[in-house]
Amino acid sequence: MLIPIILSGGAGTRLWPASRQAFPKPFMSLGGSPLLQQAIERGMACGTEEVMIVTNQDYLYLTKTLLKDMPDQPHASYLLEPKGRNTAPAIALAALACEATYGKDAVMLVLPADHLIPDTESFVTNVLEAKRHALQGQLVTFGISPTTPDTGFGYIEVEKTARTAQKALRFVEKPDLVTAQEYLATGRYYWNSGMFCFTAGTILDAFRAHSPEVLEAAQTTMSHANTTGEVTKFEAHDFNIQPDISIDYAVMERANNVTLVPAKFGWSDVGSWPAVANANTSDTNGNTFLADVVSVDTHDTHVQIESHTAKVVATIGLENLVIVDTPDALLVAHKNAAQKVKNIVDALKTRKHESTILPAAVNRPWGTYATLKEESGYKVKRITVATGQSLSLQYHHKRAEHWVVVQGTGLVQIGDTEHTTQPGEHRYIPLGEKHRLTNIGEEELVLIEVQCGGYLGEDDIVRLNDIYGRA
Amino acid sequence: MLIPIILSGGAGTRLWPASRQAFPKPFMSLGGSPLLQQAIERGMACGTEEVMIVTNQDYLYLTKTLLKDMPDQPHASYLLEPKGRNTAPAIALAALACEATYGKDAVMLVLPADHLIPDTESFVTNVLEAKRHALQGQLVTFGISPTTPDTGFGYIEVEKTARTAQKALRFVEKPDLVTAQEYLATGRYYWNSGMFCFTAGTILDAFRAHSPEVLEAAQTTMSHANTTGEVTKFEAHDFNIQPDISIDYAVMERANNVTLVPAKFGWSDVGSWPAVANANTSDTNGNTFLADVVSVDTHDTHVQIESHTAKVVATIGLENLVIVDTPDALLVAHKNAAQKVKNIVDALKTRKHESTILPAAVNRPWGTYATLKEESGYKVKRITVATGQSLSLQYHHKRAEHWVVVQGTGLVQIGDTEHTTQPGEHRYIPLGEKHRLTNIGEEELVLIEVQCGGYLGEDDIVRLNDIYGRA
Repeated sequence: MLIPIILSGGAGTRLWPASRQAFPKPFMSLGGSPLLQQAIERGMACGTEEVMIVTNQDYLYLTKTLLKDMPDQPHASYLLEPKGRNTAPAIALAALACEATYGKDAVMLVLPADHLIPDTESFVTNVLEAKRHALQGQLVTFGISPTTPDTGFGYIEVEKTARTAQKALRFVEKPDLVTAQEYLATGRYYWNSGMFCFTAGTILDAFRAHSPEVLEAAQTTMSHANTTGEVTKFEAHDFNIQPDISIDYAVMERANNVTLVPAKFGWSDVGSWPAVANANTSDTNGNTFLADVVSVDTHDTHVQIESHTAKVVATIGLENLVIVDTPDALLVAHKNAAQKVKNIVDALKTRKHESTILPAAVNRPWGTYATLKEESGYKVKRITVATGQSLSLQYHHKRAEHWVVVQGTGLVQIGDTEHTTQPGEHRYIPLGEKHRLTNIGEEELVLIEVQCGGYLGEDDIVRLNDIYGRA
Repeated sequence: MLIPIILSGGAGTRLWPASRQAFPKPFMSLGGSPLLQQAIERGMACGTEEVMIVTNQDYLYLTKTLLKDMPDQPHASYLLEPKGRNTAPAIALAALACEATYGKDAVMLVLPADHLIPDTESFVTNVLEAKRHALQGQLVTFGISPTTPDTGFGYIEVEKTARTAQKALRFVEKPDLVTAQEYLATGRYYWNSGMFCFTAGTILDAFRAHSPEVLEAAQTTMSHANTTGEVTKFEAHDFNIQPDISIDYAVMERANNVTLVPAKFGWSDVGSWPAVANANTSDTNGNTFLADVVSVDTHDTHVQIESHTAKVVATIGLENLVIVDTPDALLVAHKNAAQKVKNIVDALKTRKHESTILPAAVNRPWGTYATLKEESGYKVKRITVATGQSLSLQYHHKRAEHWVVVQGTGLVQIGDTEHTTQPGEHRYIPLGEKHRLTNIGEEELVLIEVQCGGYLGEDDIVRLNDIYGRA
């Protein structure tokens, strides 16, 4: 039994403004599909339909929507954290859940949800090799052969320069450049990919031996968890006892039964805009244009537009830049300094700037909305509702709403009356009146909403009934 | 009698994407107000309320709207060209109009509408000096003391290095760099500013002597012109006989009575994005930010946002760049290559890209509109109507419209019924039904329009009645 454990989270900082706190890297599309979807497919390619996803409870609906779109749907279970802590608690909780469901011999394949691995075949070969070691009681880590003295990764030392599976001697934290260069020269160091393979029993034994406090906290939290169907949710007051510690530090650096399997596959953690550029195919000038770009004398430049409306980008005389445009934020950065996007996000967070939190299009359990225009006294939104989905029955204290359906068929409840509403038809929701919108058609429902009122915050919503349990 | 003759036009190319074919440089705001307004105010500061504006007929309403916003309103007359030709025909037509209205001794002060001259006091001093020479039968040109060997300007040679009014010996076309450097070294060359001062009689005599075909064409065209009140309009079939020739080539290079007055004022033709940057006050890093910018390690960079919605711009590790963002086009260019924006606009024009023609917000006689969103089957617009203004009485063959007033008070005629409409109220215009919108309130009317239909082009409009003569 092989269970991919997908660790799906992130701060949405390093790839801002495309990623946001409420839309971190796993949900970003790279190479055609969201990274989280690719991670799940990669795990399933190893011969399983079972997947366990450890993620923040805020991302549950976004994740479920994403899974629903997958051609081959996994049988997914969820561990929902109230906040991101670190890898050791996440893996300890997943190990307890695995042991309880599948037994202690179940093989856990721990995969961060935001890596890019184009070569699935080599990945599967490596995983099957790792699985053999895991079944022999090893804690298996996948090492990436370093191509540069990168100071952004942890390194793992082995004994022999041979690129074969062998005992991991030592885990080291992110080194300085000189040290990284020394590591590279020896030929005995690998990048720590953050991917692991072990049985539930082996990792639980390892926690018991090397970090019993992590295991005990996980056991306590798990004993208070609320499980409904495939979803296990931890409340904040139960979860907060988890120590903020990585699996490397809690277990890997201390254990004596760690085997490193050298990755035979290409790998990127796409942890920066230059890494995103590298993950895309470039044109003859080294440019990676994910947009409608007209360029003159432009080289090695990455352009990406995240927008619902058509927009052209003109570049003249540029070299080694990253340009990322969204409706509410534009980033222009030199590739050599792109890691300083963190400083930008920090500065904007002190201003509580919304572009650090919400993406320009917001995902909800029932669909999406995007603000087209907001000025004093009114707000215009484009709202989509997926087939069969429904917004909560709700009312507002401070605003009236005009709805014009522009695609699909909606059922609009106003007060106690329901109105089937077709494209081109308008409904008016008076201030204080209860109302609900449901997509009763076969295609996506698209609606233009004009809110009118003195206060138009998202928090002016009283939910009377909600099929997603938010009332 | 001094009459400022304002030449207001342009291709909207060099400052794309802020300027567009339908919104050229004279309408762009720089230093707080549109350049055209500054040119008019500069002319009036010389002691006149009369202004003659030579412009394209497409710009008439935009120009009138702009004049209406001026604190001190000029008494303006208009010469409306069907297309931009060149400076010789424009000045010849203006001279004929001046002579007819004010007599042959009227002093014409020819001012391009898109120059930046911060020091009005020195300008006025220079103009009064020029006027004295003009009244003595001189063709006066204003020379700018060159600060760099710029190859983008024509040059004027004088005899003496002394920076005083003297005879202009020679007009030369834009030189190459080596020649420009030689000019600069002599101390006897000035940039040709394109500003002139002469009496109507003197310039008409000069045309007669040096380019009689220009004068004759102007006389013929003028004899067929339609004059209504302050507006003189030339039809295309009458105007097309005008030769495409500059005043420099037609008259100045050939005449013997040209006096150069050295400008004592700061001057820029703001003919490129770096020139726009130079015209703004920079911060300690040399940056000119006309936007909400968060910057790290950024120097000598110009950032400008033309948008109705709030947007933040983040810059990291940039030097000598120009970043101009609009809703439908983004320009990122190195300052040293910014003149190649022309290549971009040419490339987009071959694609008939709308960003080369219309600004993101379109100005109409009655107000403005901006498209917020367009997808198959619908379009969302924000429409503003100035106080007392009215759209034409019209109907559409292919679309119905929903209107929600969000500010001001509208009178909505649908069929033969009129409805006073307040903020928060909705009106529905069925397909094929005649309708009209009028602002009957004291403040600007703002309306959100949702168009629904299979075809949503701007040309599906049948005007039954129009107070601007467009029916």
